[in-house]
Amino acid sequence: MIHPPTIVWSGGIDGRVEILDQRILPLQITILSLQRTEEVWDAIRTLAVRGAPAIGIAAAYGMVIAAANAGATAGPALLAALDKAGAYLKSSRPTAVNLEWAVDRMLQVARRHGAQSPAAIRAALLAEAQAIHQEDQAMCAAIGRHGAALIPDGGGVLTHCNAGSLATGGSGTALAIMYEAHSRGVKFRVFADETRPLLQGARLTAWELSQAGVPVTLICDNMAALVMAQKKVNVVIAGADRIAANGDTANKIGTYSVATLAAAHGIPMVIAAPTSTFDLNIPDGTHIPIEERAAQEITHGFGRQTAPDGIAVYNPAFDVTPARLLHAIITERGIISPVNEANIRRLF
Amino acid sequence: MIHPPTIVWSGGIDGRVEILDQRILPLQITILSLQRTEEVWDAIRTLAVRGAPAIGIAAAYGMVIAAANAGATAGPALLAALDKAGAYLKSSRPTAVNLEWAVDRMLQVARRHGAQSPAAIRAALLAEAQAIHQEDQAMCAAIGRHGAALIPDGGGVLTHCNAGSLATGGSGTALAIMYEAHSRGVKFRVFADETRPLLQGARLTAWELSQAGVPVTLICDNMAALVMAQKKVNVVIAGADRIAANGDTANKIGTYSVATLAAAHGIPMVIAAPTSTFDLNIPDGTHIPIEERAAQEITHGFGRQTAPDGIAVYNPAFDVTPARLLHAIITERGIISPVNEANIRRLF
Repeated sequence: MIHPPTIVWSGGIDGRVEILDQRILPLQITILSLQRTEEVWDAIRTLAVRGAPAIGIAAAYGMVIAAANAGATAGPALLAALDKAGAYLKSSRPTAVNLEWAVDRMLQVARRHGAQSPAAIRAALLAEAQAIHQEDQAMCAAIGRHGAALIPDGGGVLTHCNAGSLATGGSGTALAIMYEAHSRGVKFRVFADETRPLLQGARLTAWELSQAGVPVTLICDNMAALVMAQKKVNVVIAGADRIAANGDTANKIGTYSVATLAAAHGIPMVIAAPTSTFDLNIPDGTHIPIEERAAQEITHGFGRQTAPDGIAVYNPAFDVTPARLLHAIITERGIISPVNEANIRRLF
Repeated sequence: MIHPPTIVWSGGIDGRVEILDQRILPLQITILSLQRTEEVWDAIRTLAVRGAPAIGIAAAYGMVIAAANAGATAGPALLAALDKAGAYLKSSRPTAVNLEWAVDRMLQVARRHGAQSPAAIRAALLAEAQAIHQEDQAMCAAIGRHGAALIPDGGGVLTHCNAGSLATGGSGTALAIMYEAHSRGVKFRVFADETRPLLQGARLTAWELSQAGVPVTLICDNMAALVMAQKKVNVVIAGADRIAANGDTANKIGTYSVATLAAAHGIPMVIAAPTSTFDLNIPDGTHIPIEERAAQEITHGFGRQTAPDGIAVYNPAFDVTPARLLHAIITERGIISPVNEANIRRLF
């Protein structure tokens, strides 16, 4: 677990959510203190907080803030205001289903307490957001326990983007497995893809693993195939933003590339994700909306322009890895392998 | 062909080599004027000039400069000075064989004229360097003609790094094929991998293709698999730095990744390279030395630090694509397909 933590609620029903600003890590440790729904929306949209479980938690606290922002509004008017705030928070990013899941869970609590005073509704919302946060911590630990045996002593693990403490309310999803194996005394090295365009691997994964004393080597995304060919990688473990009913998995752009390369080298590709990341309403990955982000993330990545003016750019933030390329999905409830609809439905 | 050109010799035997500084393209057009062997070594080492054919030409002119720097030295002492300068220039970068090839060709000319006056030797060296430069232009055009039919009308091409005008004395190798198809009226789009860590795709390929009016879309390296899965790519065309007798091909890091992904998607992977890129002295790719470059290229790539202090980094500048993943190699003498030792030896 990192310090300072990714997300903290500070105070009571009039409190604020404090977020470790991940846009400028690891060079600066800055805490954002958010007390307006718009600030929470912006923090999610601009990736100050990111990672499917973490943005679910942030949105849950965002709903507590929405209730506070509603002031003396009560009854059906308060519920309507919360519905509006929920739709607004959901609009911040389209791909991760945890965001919808957390907001919907908060709205159900609001409706269950709809006949009570605004203060009582706000207390119930805060309790629910804190429950989501605490469940997330327990989920991370459980994923770590279920997956730890995947990492052989003396082996190598490749990971993409950041599915760690910084992406959750606990020790992570993919990285929870590495932290658990490390705590059991397993010796291994992690190869962290830097993960263009926003370099979550270089800035976040390399940072939190090295803080925790887990040996980590940073590589560019286009080097993953070479380290696989050099037999330095025994397993690939990544997170997920949304998993369809058949196991097709949306995750950070480049995950499909890594999965295809792993298959070509006979290396198991493993996804670590809580059950809240599954969207059983969609049959397969073709139904997952893929966010496209600004060209500037690629052309002006890090402080200066690195591509010609006006060049055409394609910048999808996610891709979908078909279930057939996955060896297993590790959830807090256990392991899904082989990855198919029957095995997924059995777990739910 | 770009303007200003990649390399120009200016003046007579006391002249200088003028190089378009590719380290700061496309934001600044700066010409380096080099009159010392050390300056040529540095320009190659720091990638002010890069691309296997272009560094061969630069090194050939570097040998003319070495003879000028030797002043009144004559006879065996001059030949010894040239041998030393040649070894020095070869040490600037280890992987591309064109560098060795060009220096050795210059040394043969020096020895052939070894009994003559220093001025006569210098004139012969300048003539040979200019011949290498002009042959390179003809080579590019021939590769373009041999390969142009690979690009279907309405199709898509993916390329990696820069194997264009900026990498040669002419219109390029991989990009020569695209320029030739474009000049024949074929409509197609190029997807240019940005090519971390030094972004030759973003800075150089995107720049020179868009200058020439060839439609180009810039992507991050980890998006290549996705555009292949979306069926936007009919053929992958890349350059080479050294090709072994069996067809194993060293090229910019990430080429092996792209070749593996192309195979998984049933897309032909094509290498474009002059015969000077072949090293028939080595049986296969395991004998190709792979340059490793500084960690800072990855950790401080974009004008500011983007990874934690002191993080372990692996930064190989090249990888080797096994011949079995190649559909064809396009040379100035014709097409090698399937790629194997017998077909390669037949061409030589």
